[in-house]
Amino acid sequence: MEDHHRDNLSVPENINPATWDKVLRSVASPDERTPYLIIDRDVIRDKVSQIGSGISNSRVFYAVKANPDISVVSFLNELGVDFEIASEGELAILSSLGVKGERIITSNPVKSLKFLNEAVSYGVSRYAFDSLQEVEKLSLHAPGSIVYVRLNVPNEGSEWPLSKKYGVEIDDALHLLERAGDAGLRPEGLTFHVGSQCHNVYNWDMALDKSVQLWDAAREKGIELKFVNIGGGYPIKYTKDVMDISDIEAQIDRSVQTRFGSDIEVHIEPGRSVVGDSGILVASVIGKAVRGDENWLYLDVGVFNGLMESLGGIKYSYFCDGRGEHKSWTIAGPSCDSFDVMDRDVELPEPHVGDTMLILSCGAYTVSYASEFNGFSIPRTIML
Amino acid sequence: MEDHHRDNLSVPENINPATWDKVLRSVASPDERTPYLIIDRDVIRDKVSQIGSGISNSRVFYAVKANPDISVVSFLNELGVDFEIASEGELAILSSLGVKGERIITSNPVKSLKFLNEAVSYGVSRYAFDSLQEVEKLSLHAPGSIVYVRLNVPNEGSEWPLSKKYGVEIDDALHLLERAGDAGLRPEGLTFHVGSQCHNVYNWDMALDKSVQLWDAAREKGIELKFVNIGGGYPIKYTKDVMDISDIEAQIDRSVQTRFGSDIEVHIEPGRSVVGDSGILVASVIGKAVRGDENWLYLDVGVFNGLMESLGGIKYSYFCDGRGEHKSWTIAGPSCDSFDVMDRDVELPEPHVGDTMLILSCGAYTVSYASEFNGFSIPRTIML
Repeated sequence: MEDHHRDNLSVPENINPATWDKVLRSVASPDERTPYLIIDRDVIRDKVSQIGSGISNSRVFYAVKANPDISVVSFLNELGVDFEIASEGELAILSSLGVKGERIITSNPVKSLKFLNEAVSYGVSRYAFDSLQEVEKLSLHAPGSIVYVRLNVPNEGSEWPLSKKYGVEIDDALHLLERAGDAGLRPEGLTFHVGSQCHNVYNWDMALDKSVQLWDAAREKGIELKFVNIGGGYPIKYTKDVMDISDIEAQIDRSVQTRFGSDIEVHIEPGRSVVGDSGILVASVIGKAVRGDENWLYLDVGVFNGLMESLGGIKYSYFCDGRGEHKSWTIAGPSCDSFDVMDRDVELPEPHVGDTMLILSCGAYTVSYASEFNGFSIPRTIML
Repeated sequence: MEDHHRDNLSVPENINPATWDKVLRSVASPDERTPYLIIDRDVIRDKVSQIGSGISNSRVFYAVKANPDISVVSFLNELGVDFEIASEGELAILSSLGVKGERIITSNPVKSLKFLNEAVSYGVSRYAFDSLQEVEKLSLHAPGSIVYVRLNVPNEGSEWPLSKKYGVEIDDALHLLERAGDAGLRPEGLTFHVGSQCHNVYNWDMALDKSVQLWDAAREKGIELKFVNIGGGYPIKYTKDVMDISDIEAQIDRSVQTRFGSDIEVHIEPGRSVVGDSGILVASVIGKAVRGDENWLYLDVGVFNGLMESLGGIKYSYFCDGRGEHKSWTIAGPSCDSFDVMDRDVELPEPHVGDTMLILSCGAYTVSYASEFNGFSIPRTIML
């Protein structure tokens, strides 16, 4: 991207002008080979100060899977955020940073023995579960741990619904809490997940309705729960406007207060909303073609080396500088795989082969899903 | 898997008993941590001796993307197979083995400049193309190269149809061949792809029908083509029976002879059919759950760290030893992502948590798509 073009590149509406300026300066550097992912620390810092601030007595655990890059996790650690992990790979990242076990929870309801043993010896003491097999596993390998049961809740209106794979209904959840207590574990909470990128604020209400039923039923059985883990699901803007986090949290806070009173502790596990907006993927146009009546653009980043969520329906915002005629494009990745097509009907000025393409809101679930399929490299992360 | 159980584990019908015996001995070794991928060299050797043997004047180029593991590619190199690549990453693998440029082709119709420049300086001289931009790119960066145009052909009856992303119709293809000649390139061939895992033998007939039309039209314009590259697409058996390669090749050979006569050279780019059957993925059961009326099994390998093609519809064969009651299972991977579900309604005897699970026909498009999402490791490859 040459200087005289950059001057004409207007700031996208959902990008902070200071970030945009930093990105353009970084892109102008001739040393960097695309594709790479720019992460703006200032954006992460703002999100961290916001998320959780609207919910009383809450504690935030960053879901490491959203972006496990060591520089990102290290920065979040400096900001004092706690962490949610699912595997020995994620534990190894936190361990390399010296994060204490008491700041780590694992909400993966089905843990491998290897991971569980490593987590226990590292000092992790809070574990989700949702099956009798897991009660048995935890009672043998993590005796005396704090456990929280995963409740199945409606996921309507989420872009990546998470129901079915995990979670049980209220009766089963109650039974599991009792069995956990009998087995010497400490049943102290419950968790649910409304689905990733959730656009329906009532999902949290419905989930909290089910939660309070379980909570009360547990109390009748003599089990005093202490916390509700509300999972993640806060949405970010890709191409469509989304609810503000402050509005979502105000609604959740009201729901919690009404149903549970003020003693309850609320755990939040945001991933996408912490890091998503902070990242801009810098790619290059490697080819163009006209096929039938479709205009195709080929980038050096695609579904397999960074934009996997395109397959699940995420529509990214693409930006390139405005030399050519505006056209409607099908945008594809570099691999020979026909699944490697990110989007259709994207309006963009026609770029030249070799031009830079910026893809916004790429801080979460991009490099974390990426593979080197077909020999294309995974974008490096560059912290600004 | 304990010895007294292994004795009862019958040989799956599509596995060679010698391979099965080798796998069971390897699985019994206490040193290996799951998940890992066992590759049987003998199976690859048999496939290499078969593939191409039924088509006159043919030459086989292994599609590296199917399994780019260095030990697999090195073994194929020892067997004298040539290679098809798409990227600098794949070129680096071949270069590390000292494979000469003349044994390499690239059928990726849209190449990054970085890759193209590296391939040219390595001595690769045959390139696919299907756009004017690529003619321009090739004429500037690979002047004098042999080029072959990608034709769009029907993909009905293939499990992973590849049409639309690449390929042009006959008129456009003819125009591109002329432009390539005008630009100082050597237009000598055409290529198509019937789609991966193709169950419809008539796809090759239909593709060759279009090919001969282009061939004759090119001759009228004074362009004498020399080869047809028929891509890949030979199927392997996962759970459904497939056509024999010898039957497919007999049909293709007849089609080629009838349409083109005997002077034509045929290039074949198999990937899945070379390495797919040679691989058995060894995983462990990490959890079980009953959810509603579904029985769930959780493995330490899933959609993101090896079984990505489950999302595209590939149904793998799962084997575990037969202690428990036979039930119908939903089989899921270890990550917290609800897309990480491989299959439903799989009949298996009930295993214990910790038991070994074997997944057949996993030599192709497994580790090549794999990422470390959510901190779960990519299976190591172990050559037998």
